[in-house]
Amino acid sequence: MKKIGNQSYSFDSPPTIVDCASIVGPKEAQGPLSKYFDLCIEDEFWGEKTWEKAESKIIKETVNTVIAKSGIPSAQIDCCFAGDLLNQCISSSFGLRELSIPFFGVFGACSAFVESMSLAAICTEAFAENTLCATSSHFCSAEKQFRFPLELGNQRPQSSQWTVTGAGSAILSKNGTGPYITMITPGKIVDMGIKDGNNMGAAMAPAFCDTLTTHFLDTGRNPSYYDAIISGDLGYVGKEIVLDIMSSKGYNIKSNYNDCGILIFDKLKQDTHSGGSGCGCCASVFSGYLFKELRARKMKKLLLIATGALMNSTSSQQGESIPGIAHAISIEI
Amino acid sequence: MKKIGNQSYSFDSPPTIVDCASIVGPKEAQGPLSKYFDLCIEDEFWGEKTWEKAESKIIKETVNTVIAKSGIPSAQIDCCFAGDLLNQCISSSFGLRELSIPFFGVFGACSAFVESMSLAAICTEAFAENTLCATSSHFCSAEKQFRFPLELGNQRPQSSQWTVTGAGSAILSKNGTGPYITMITPGKIVDMGIKDGNNMGAAMAPAFCDTLTTHFLDTGRNPSYYDAIISGDLGYVGKEIVLDIMSSKGYNIKSNYNDCGILIFDKLKQDTHSGGSGCGCCASVFSGYLFKELRARKMKKLLLIATGALMNSTSSQQGESIPGIAHAISIEI
Repeated sequence: MKKIGNQSYSFDSPPTIVDCASIVGPKEAQGPLSKYFDLCIEDEFWGEKTWEKAESKIIKETVNTVIAKSGIPSAQIDCCFAGDLLNQCISSSFGLRELSIPFFGVFGACSAFVESMSLAAICTEAFAENTLCATSSHFCSAEKQFRFPLELGNQRPQSSQWTVTGAGSAILSKNGTGPYITMITPGKIVDMGIKDGNNMGAAMAPAFCDTLTTHFLDTGRNPSYYDAIISGDLGYVGKEIVLDIMSSKGYNIKSNYNDCGILIFDKLKQDTHSGGSGCGCCASVFSGYLFKELRARKMKKLLLIATGALMNSTSSQQGESIPGIAHAISIEI
Repeated sequence: MKKIGNQSYSFDSPPTIVDCASIVGPKEAQGPLSKYFDLCIEDEFWGEKTWEKAESKIIKETVNTVIAKSGIPSAQIDCCFAGDLLNQCISSSFGLRELSIPFFGVFGACSAFVESMSLAAICTEAFAENTLCATSSHFCSAEKQFRFPLELGNQRPQSSQWTVTGAGSAILSKNGTGPYITMITPGKIVDMGIKDGNNMGAAMAPAFCDTLTTHFLDTGRNPSYYDAIISGDLGYVGKEIVLDIMSSKGYNIKSNYNDCGILIFDKLKQDTHSGGSGCGCCASVFSGYLFKELRARKMKKLLLIATGALMNSTSSQQGESIPGIAHAISIEI
């Protein structure tokens, strides 16, 4: 690996994303990306007694699916990076406890998928033949934990995002014919003092712009280098803020910038307010949709930047603001 | 890096642990390792209004201390790995939000310190000049979150461990004169069905033995290769189980095996039942005590294996068992 500029790195032998898998919930199945997912489950419980157990089953079966699709035996996967939104990341720990692959738990809130991909790419170049990444989220387990009991039927503000029920998983390999992870720009924590837990887009947008600007300055690339620059997940509110901030910095990304939280739900037919969010949103949109676009060469250069809000309900109750983070990976074929 | 056996890796240019720092709470200050810590705070609040904010301040000041001691400007630290026990890891996210170093959040429960050291060592060999690791825990924030309100004065079973208030931090560097991280053995999740949240030692001991046995088989080393094999943190109950399991596998580690949770508190004078635990226990015992023993060459070969219980209070309420994990690093000078 080579350092480029202050905070970006290129790979001497860019790891290939061998295959991806995704499983999503019933609401996501009604969205515009429905046909891209490996499986859409029919209800939020999927035969389990609790939403937490359902989420564990989703990430477990997503990982089983990607292993089966890749044809790589799990014994040949050297390590696994996984995380989720639940307290102490129980979705991934319980979902993957029978996997028998050396396990690194990550926490980056909704940035966890790209954080996992970045670390897996580093390990693939450094020592591993194959590595695995997986992250998940679940609307019901997240609402219950971060906001209100679902049974309360609480009204959601227009700036709020809808946590995606779903998981995505990818296998990276030293050998392959792409799509390749060619660069990473790991992000710094950025906290601009936003305190509204129902406006995560606003809290995370500054971190996204910090990482994106750093990526451009480090690499000398400009927005038009990429076929698509995709955030995960800022929603409609965050997207508007991003366009404003980037424009004030002299970057026009209007024509090729979009957001996983916007892509996954239909704005008119599905009432999600500011769009989707959660570790499973970016993970399933990439693993389901974007990866297939890359492999079909409909898209050749993608900059995927996942954003996370590093807070919990206690920190909000204690009057704290919401620190944001954003990690970028450049994927090319 | 080179793969050794199934699951262990050696470094071509072993990273040096340049310096360490540790800050602990008032109970830890009364323990046998008191003189080794950089700072012992006088009460559990340290001038903050909540225990969560106090824990954030502890990890923040620990990181500031190690940066100051190392003489390495933070702008020359390429990335940081950090984690803790609080929901969504808010201690490390909030404590390190002003650090302005690319940030990877990890979650491995009490295994987080060695997980961070392993990933930081990989990055140091792969691309980084310098990397930083830090983890923390706090008795009051942990009890409140995982068990009962402290005000209840609940009686603790004899098998329970006492979460350490404290943090440890280390800076790794490509260049230096040791102590070196020479090998890592990342662990798999092991769940033997233990459901007692007040007996973490029993839940994590099988994962420890799995990683330790794998390390011996992979490397061809035997227990006597190491001056010390230290777990973090199995306590007295876990230590007994470990000695039994390892003996049944044909390994005698009685003479050089000990546990951070046993080392940090005085068994007779301090009533902690099974000993210490928490992300801050292994972190502060290594950063305070073990690192200084290595640097003074009183100890030359250390195998540090941190163990984590990957559960939360919801999973226990839902009748789940407790998956354990253990990551090993070999540190030599």
